[in-house]
Amino acid sequence: MTHRALIHLNEAAPEKIRAVLQNTTNLLAALGPGTRVELVAHGPGIAVATEPPTEQLTALLDAGASLCVCRNTLTARGLSEADLHPQAEVVPSGVAHLVVRQAEGWAYLRP
Amino acid sequence: MTHRALIHLNEAAPEKIRAVLQNTTNLLAALGPGTRVELVAHGPGIAVATEPPTEQLTALLDAGASLCVCRNTLTARGLSEADLHPQAEVVPSGVAHLVVRQAEGWAYLRP
Amino acid sequence: MTHRALIHLNEAAPEKIRAVLQNTTNLLAALGPGTRVELVAHGPGIAVATEPPTEQLTALLDAGASLCVCRNTLTARGLSEADLHPQAEVVPSGVAHLVVRQAEGWAYLRP
Repeated sequence: MTHRALIHLNEAAPEKIRAVLQNTTNLLAALGPGTRVELVAHGPGIAVATEPPTEQLTALLDAGASLCVCRNTLTARGLSEADLHPQAEVVPSGVAHLVVRQAEGWAYLRP
Repeated sequence: MTHRALIHLNEAAPEKIRAVLQNTTNLLAALGPGTRVELVAHGPGIAVATEPPTEQLTALLDAGASLCVCRNTLTARGLSEADLHPQAEVVPSGVAHLVVRQAEGWAYLRP
Repeated sequence: MTHRALIHLNEAAPEKIRAVLQNTTNLLAALGPGTRVELVAHGPGIAVATEPPTEQLTALLDAGASLCVCRNTLTARGLSEADLHPQAEVVPSGVAHLVVRQAEGWAYLRP
C-alpha cells in the first residue's frame, strides 16, 4: 500500500521545526519508497519555507516530500513566492488543503 | 463535494483562540458555501465559549459554523450551559465527539 | 460500532500528560466497552512510559488501552524496552504507526 500523509506545521520555533523535519524523515524511512508526504505550513509555520533551508529539509524535498505553503499566510504577511524556498508549492489555503486531502484519504499528523 | 471539518481546540490563550478562529474563517472562505465546520472545545479551550464573544466568532456562527462544547469540561469546572455562548451546543464528551465524527468521514484539524 | 482512536503524545510536561490521560479516560467512558484506544508516544512524549506510572495510566492499561512507544525515540535516547512501563508495546516508528492506523480507519486525536 502506498501511504499518504499530511504533516501540519503552524509553529515557528526552530526546535519545533527541527522535530517536525526529523519526524518526516523517520516517517519516510519507515514507510518506504513511494510514500507521499506533504508538509503543510501556514501561519507562523511558514518559517520553514522562508528561513535558510536546513540540510534535513533539502534532503526531504530531494527525496520527494512536498512543502505546501498557504497563500493566505503569504498575503497576510506581505510575502510573495519569491520569499519562499524554490521547491515550495503554494496552496490557496493551508487549512483547506488539509481538509481536502483528508477527504481524499490522506492521513493527518500534527506533531 | 461538501466538506466537513472538525477544529479541535483545547487551549485558552487568547492568541491561540484568535488564530483558530482566523483559520476557521479562511477554511470556510476557501471551501465555499455548504461546508460544515464544527469547532470542538474542551478543557481550557472552552474559554472560546465562556469569554465575551469576538466579532469573528459571531460571524462564524452566523455563517453556519457550530461551536460544540464538552459536558465533561463543564462538569469538571462547575459550569452550566447558562455560562456558555447562547449558540454553543453541548456534547457529552469533546474527545468522543471528535472520534465519532471522524468515523463518519469528517476531517480533523488541530491548529 | 466499535470505535478505534489514536492519541498522539509528543510532549513531556506532566500537566500535558495528565490532561491526555484524562482525555483518554473520558473517551473510553463515553464510547463504551470494546472501544480501542492506542496512546502513541514518541519524542519527549515517551516520558509517559518511562516515568513511574500514575494510577490513571495503570487504570487505562488495565481497561484495555494500549501504550505504543516509538523505537526510533528509544534508539535516539539510548533507552531500551527495559526502561519502559512493562505493558508498553514498542512500534518501529511512532509517526509511521499513526499513519498506518489512520489508513486502517482509526480516528486521530492530538490533545
